[in-house]
Amino acid sequence: MKQISGGVNAAKGFQTACVAAGIKYQGRVDMAMLYSTVPCRCAGTFTTNVVKAAPVIWDRNIVQNSAFAQAVIINAGIANACTGAEGLKYCEDTAKAAGELLNIPADAVCVASTGVIGKQLPIERIVAGTKAMVPLLSDTQEAATDASKAIMTTDTHNKEIAFEFTAGGRTVHLGGMCKGSGMIHPNMCTMLGFLTTDLAISKELLQEALSEDIKDTFNMISVDGDTSTNDTVLIFANGLAGNEMITEKNEDYAEFVKALHAVNEFLAKSMAADGEGATKLFEVKVLHARDKAQAITLSKSVITSSLVKAAVYGSDANWGRILCAMGYSGEQFDPEKVDLFIESAEDGRLQLVANGMATDYSEEKATKILSAKEVTAIADIKTGDACATAWGCDLTYDYVKINADYRS
Amino acid sequence: MKQISGGVNAAKGFQTACVAAGIKYQGRVDMAMLYSTVPCRCAGTFTTNVVKAAPVIWDRNIVQNSAFAQAVIINAGIANACTGAEGLKYCEDTAKAAGELLNIPADAVCVASTGVIGKQLPIERIVAGTKAMVPLLSDTQEAATDASKAIMTTDTHNKEIAFEFTAGGRTVHLGGMCKGSGMIHPNMCTMLGFLTTDLAISKELLQEALSEDIKDTFNMISVDGDTSTNDTVLIFANGLAGNEMITEKNEDYAEFVKALHAVNEFLAKSMAADGEGATKLFEVKVLHARDKAQAITLSKSVITSSLVKAAVYGSDANWGRILCAMGYSGEQFDPEKVDLFIESAEDGRLQLVANGMATDYSEEKATKILSAKEVTAIADIKTGDACATAWGCDLTYDYVKINADYRS
Repeated sequence: MKQISGGVNAAKGFQTACVAAGIKYQGRVDMAMLYSTVPCRCAGTFTTNVVKAAPVIWDRNIVQNSAFAQAVIINAGIANACTGAEGLKYCEDTAKAAGELLNIPADAVCVASTGVIGKQLPIERIVAGTKAMVPLLSDTQEAATDASKAIMTTDTHNKEIAFEFTAGGRTVHLGGMCKGSGMIHPNMCTMLGFLTTDLAISKELLQEALSEDIKDTFNMISVDGDTSTNDTVLIFANGLAGNEMITEKNEDYAEFVKALHAVNEFLAKSMAADGEGATKLFEVKVLHARDKAQAITLSKSVITSSLVKAAVYGSDANWGRILCAMGYSGEQFDPEKVDLFIESAEDGRLQLVANGMATDYSEEKATKILSAKEVTAIADIKTGDACATAWGCDLTYDYVKINADYRS
Repeated sequence: MKQISGGVNAAKGFQTACVAAGIKYQGRVDMAMLYSTVPCRCAGTFTTNVVKAAPVIWDRNIVQNSAFAQAVIINAGIANACTGAEGLKYCEDTAKAAGELLNIPADAVCVASTGVIGKQLPIERIVAGTKAMVPLLSDTQEAATDASKAIMTTDTHNKEIAFEFTAGGRTVHLGGMCKGSGMIHPNMCTMLGFLTTDLAISKELLQEALSEDIKDTFNMISVDGDTSTNDTVLIFANGLAGNEMITEKNEDYAEFVKALHAVNEFLAKSMAADGEGATKLFEVKVLHARDKAQAITLSKSVITSSLVKAAVYGSDANWGRILCAMGYSGEQFDPEKVDLFIESAEDGRLQLVANGMATDYSEEKATKILSAKEVTAIADIKTGDACATAWGCDLTYDYVKINADYRS
């Protein structure tokens, strides 16, 4: 397996286009389209929020009931959430318009939206944008990058990656792009993620591989603890690599799962590091937990704590807040068995806590470690064999600034 | 029932003192003492955090096992949490020192600490401070106010109140003080609360009244979602009002519960409004819920959302974030039945959402309402008969500033 260029166009048969449709922003590209020249098996995971945006309802139906899918129309600026029957109708209108132009069924066209909740889409502009994009479809790296930029909201940079691996003697490509910066606490975040591969794989295994992997990747990040109404990850597999169709969990499946994890982890970490206002990626590992569920709950409670996040911003080794956040997570553990370390690539590892109490550590060294761009905290609870890693970011003035007046 | 002056010294027989003991801060009063001239029935509620500070362990034992209590020694600056056997020993040392000076048993002396986690108390200074306070004990309003200031950390002002009511023909007094500004998400919050009354009431009913009332008051506020290791509310009842001892839920009990609720609601709202960096009190009411548990979960999810809090700071009627926060709370409800209103005392009520979708409301009026010092959001989910009210505050630059470098 190796990293390659191409983003979501790295896999054979995939094309993208984008356009400035004037959905909300003036003078910026705010719609993107992803298209496969041949039908794809499609799998997806969606927000667990009770309030589900219209595109989530539309796409979930396609993932569950359509034999194949072949395109996605994405807009930034308006989330099409809390928009009732009208909002759902606009999903259908968009899919129909795209379907006619691409000569594919409307139920093979997914839609995705991100932005402000509660406003109706300007459907004429969406349809006009869709029409404008069809003749612009291109399979280049540049087109993929442009698409990954078109879907950004408060993101400060685009997020895309691709890998190639071998399955059944054939070279297979897997690419992904995502957006997400605020309202990020996936269970399934507005995180939108789109993955493309030319692998031939059954729909069931495609869904299983995705559903399993997001537990360790997208669902392990949090910017602000707010689980969006729009979270969506879709993967499209068109089979053009020509490998023998994967229908069981063989070696080829294992290779795919490895590549999928690499793409998802890269995208998830990129979103956490680019959290609204963030200056640092904050990684939290919980080691030797009783079971995975305990490790996940404890690690996510730490990355979600406003007090911990503010301390990370200040490069302040206020480890009591980390133990406190573990303590109110809802999981039981023995505080007097906890060892706590901080670590950065530049300045190595430092033990702050041994068996629940402060070591005689150097505050100077702690501050140095915490000043890195990527900071890790490791809590060893010495109970069992399970572990988990969660990714978040620091809480800064800019997070408040961005969100105090998001809509204007 | 009427509001009176006197704070925790309003009830007969209670006295306070405070001193600058140099625990952490230089040149400010940072220890307080509360004392009853006669033994009190004592009830308490404590943090649910798995990581419990030493004073929580000490006080819980007194509440559960001592026949009476008569004093509390409180310090600000160091929380005495994550301090192991040494930390617990310091609680005992403090209680013993106070007990000797006051001629009462050590197990009648509660202790409470608030401040940074993981540092040991400077026990010599605590003991010296305790000794210094005993001759300063006074039952005046001024002494009560000074004590309520001594226990502050990042609070911007002290919090105290008192009421009088009638029980069995006697005038009874109930006063309270508390501190709390950050790490406030009581389940039980570091909130510390101390209530005093000269009511004669059985220990069982005193505990029941307190445990029930905090569910609707202290446990319904959140500044940052972080449940502290030190949260403690203690109530002392010394019987000096001379009413016939309350041993059943009669009319006198009902009067007491009313006064208790008035004190607790005032103190709880004061803490929310004085949340770290806060410029506004943000109240959220959920109406017509299926049951109380649903109403509590939904209202607390809204006041805890960083995105909602930032929007409140910006006076931005970004109601989608409120519905979003209700949606990821873990409770089921029908988003398409939700009516949402905002309200302030100055500018009245405005409906933003009807049946899950935006009304044609005036953004100008919405911004005006949200610019008040006290803002209410009301979500009517039209399901049942239960309701709940939660109190929080806005998320501001100053919250980040205060917490990025709390320890220095």
